[in-house]
Amino acid sequence: MSHERMFELIKRDTTSKARVGRLNTAHGAVDTPVFMSVGTQASVKALDPRELREMGTQIILGNTYHLNIRPGMEIITAAGGLHQFMNWQAPILTDSGGFQVFSLATIRKIQAHGVEFRSHLDGSLLFLGPKEAMKIQATLGSDIAMVFDDCPPHTSTPRELRGAVDRTVRWARECREQPRSPGQLVFGIVQGAANPALREECAKELVGMAFDGYAIGGVSVGEPEPEMMRAIEITEPFLPANQPRYAMGLGTPAQLVELVARGVDMFDCVLPTRVARNGTAFTRKGSISVKGGAYKADFRPIEEGCDCFACQHFTRAYIRHLLNVGEILGLRLLSVHNTRMYLKVMEDIRAAILAGTFDALRREFATNYIPTQKVLLARAAAADR
Amino acid sequence: MSHERMFELIKRDTTSKARVGRLNTAHGAVDTPVFMSVGTQASVKALDPRELREMGTQIILGNTYHLNIRPGMEIITAAGGLHQFMNWQAPILTDSGGFQVFSLATIRKIQAHGVEFRSHLDGSLLFLGPKEAMKIQATLGSDIAMVFDDCPPHTSTPRELRGAVDRTVRWARECREQPRSPGQLVFGIVQGAANPALREECAKELVGMAFDGYAIGGVSVGEPEPEMMRAIEITEPFLPANQPRYAMGLGTPAQLVELVARGVDMFDCVLPTRVARNGTAFTRKGSISVKGGAYKADFRPIEEGCDCFACQHFTRAYIRHLLNVGEILGLRLLSVHNTRMYLKVMEDIRAAILAGTFDALRREFATNYIPTQKVLLARAAAADR
Repeated sequence: MSHERMFELIKRDTTSKARVGRLNTAHGAVDTPVFMSVGTQASVKALDPRELREMGTQIILGNTYHLNIRPGMEIITAAGGLHQFMNWQAPILTDSGGFQVFSLATIRKIQAHGVEFRSHLDGSLLFLGPKEAMKIQATLGSDIAMVFDDCPPHTSTPRELRGAVDRTVRWARECREQPRSPGQLVFGIVQGAANPALREECAKELVGMAFDGYAIGGVSVGEPEPEMMRAIEITEPFLPANQPRYAMGLGTPAQLVELVARGVDMFDCVLPTRVARNGTAFTRKGSISVKGGAYKADFRPIEEGCDCFACQHFTRAYIRHLLNVGEILGLRLLSVHNTRMYLKVMEDIRAAILAGTFDALRREFATNYIPTQKVLLARAAAADR
Repeated sequence: MSHERMFELIKRDTTSKARVGRLNTAHGAVDTPVFMSVGTQASVKALDPRELREMGTQIILGNTYHLNIRPGMEIITAAGGLHQFMNWQAPILTDSGGFQVFSLATIRKIQAHGVEFRSHLDGSLLFLGPKEAMKIQATLGSDIAMVFDDCPPHTSTPRELRGAVDRTVRWARECREQPRSPGQLVFGIVQGAANPALREECAKELVGMAFDGYAIGGVSVGEPEPEMMRAIEITEPFLPANQPRYAMGLGTPAQLVELVARGVDMFDCVLPTRVARNGTAFTRKGSISVKGGAYKADFRPIEEGCDCFACQHFTRAYIRHLLNVGEILGLRLLSVHNTRMYLKVMEDIRAAILAGTFDALRREFATNYIPTQKVLLARAAAADR
């Protein structure tokens, strides 16, 4: 598929780098900017495929590292691929496992063609490299496969970062040569932390390999928000405008708006379902703790005006009670709301860009959305520097 | 409401005591024999109201003991009752809390007009008696309230059983005099364990008080199956034929068929959702452990021919994987299947009684359904006696 057919750039915002596009995959088209729900282990936590489709989910994520351990590729092969296994007949993007190997597992040895590590689950010795990651993703049959990269912690030394970028580039080239499943797209991943020279170098090397799209990795690795924004800003100019850009593992709703303004088209994040399990809801005004006693007799929906199944049918008081007594329905309903909230933000972003009102939406969001204390402190610290 | 209008006896089976009826409540009619899903804490575990209605749930249970502790009656009152609080616009039956006080809580003192006990949750001192239980149920606004009874363990001495029956009768009379919510029906509960004289005496006393229906309590308290069946058999003849009979806390699908044959109209049981959380599915051939490795590459539905959402969309292999990796969707899907399985058994029972083929269904069930080892051992022990 040519880049033009694979990714259609429909409209560019005049006030920012935001754009509306359409990404065509083997399992259908995806309107961008898009939020991709995370289904690490072949399930978006607490939700079923029907709920996901009803709330407008276009594409979900699966993970090479986890799925290779359980259920394992023998079962995925017998099922006829990941779409069939989990009965999700829309697009799937699979992460390569690089991030998990470098964050979850105990690394035994980084070798020329991959990493020897111990499973986080049972300590068994495993090996994952470009060849293995691409083979697993071909077996999964995802619509978009990611290259196997070296994703170092944000506390890495310059020397470590240098090594990670070198390996990422070398491994990307190996990934590029591996067999794919029919129609499978492959995205490169740019590393280099907050170092402009490394980001530029890594991006240019990858673009030279002509991937179907490009991800900015090495973000959401524990760095403060200003550093994350900078990593995106110093990388984006080196990515082709006519191809999709994906910021991995981000972010809060307010961050997504700002990242769209910086030219990013695709996002994935565990926050909507993870904070739901802690009793927290995302709203246009920031996150609120529904589990807290403040809402115990509050009979409004989680967010007034929200069209999600939870807000249409249940009150804060009821959901708070469910969370308080440990009923699964409580975290289900918050997962529904939070996921729909993210999707609706993206729908509104797309509509605003098309209508030429993205700047107003962006300012409105910045005014109304109260970030968490952690984000505010990081911003203050950055301003002081 | 007269008994005739409240409960319509539509058809009696000629080969057994089975009957088809219709129970009219303030929130609509219920076709009997009926299985009532248990929503102890204002939620049928893991399921939402839409799923429940889709699978044919007619009526659910709530619990006085639990709901009085959390969220508490202040919040239920503010919500406008239990139906509104949980957004379930169909019939609800509430248990009185008697069973929970005698099984969950630490009893401090049984008094003339109720029980002083410590909450199983935080040890706080609480009091529940006929007056309190009926007041809570009026606040909940359930369609059917149960009297507050003394439900002793099955290991009780004859002297303890005597005391429990005396209290149950006295408390039932007190409950009879309490205010109700509009249209609320009240059922008496017969105690007396496996003692025919006590059961007869208790039943006759309660029937003399003219309740809207009668439950057989003191079953599902740890007794072996033959003793449970006997408790039903020795009680049923003393219950009015033109009123609904409810066997509390029972049972397996095979037991439900046999209890219908013994003249029971209503059932509630936590088994469908509880065993789901342990990775077990009910089928017409007995229960199977889906979590076990046997189904890891089995791409059939949980039960072939089943019309539930889980069986229509997902395989054993997928659900087994979800259970194996601890994804919530796994126990959700098993809860859907198990609950639908129970409801379908009741639908088939009603259809068979109406068609005059109940005896064939009963024999088919007994032939195909493989009971658990525990049930088989209890039956063998009873046969040896």
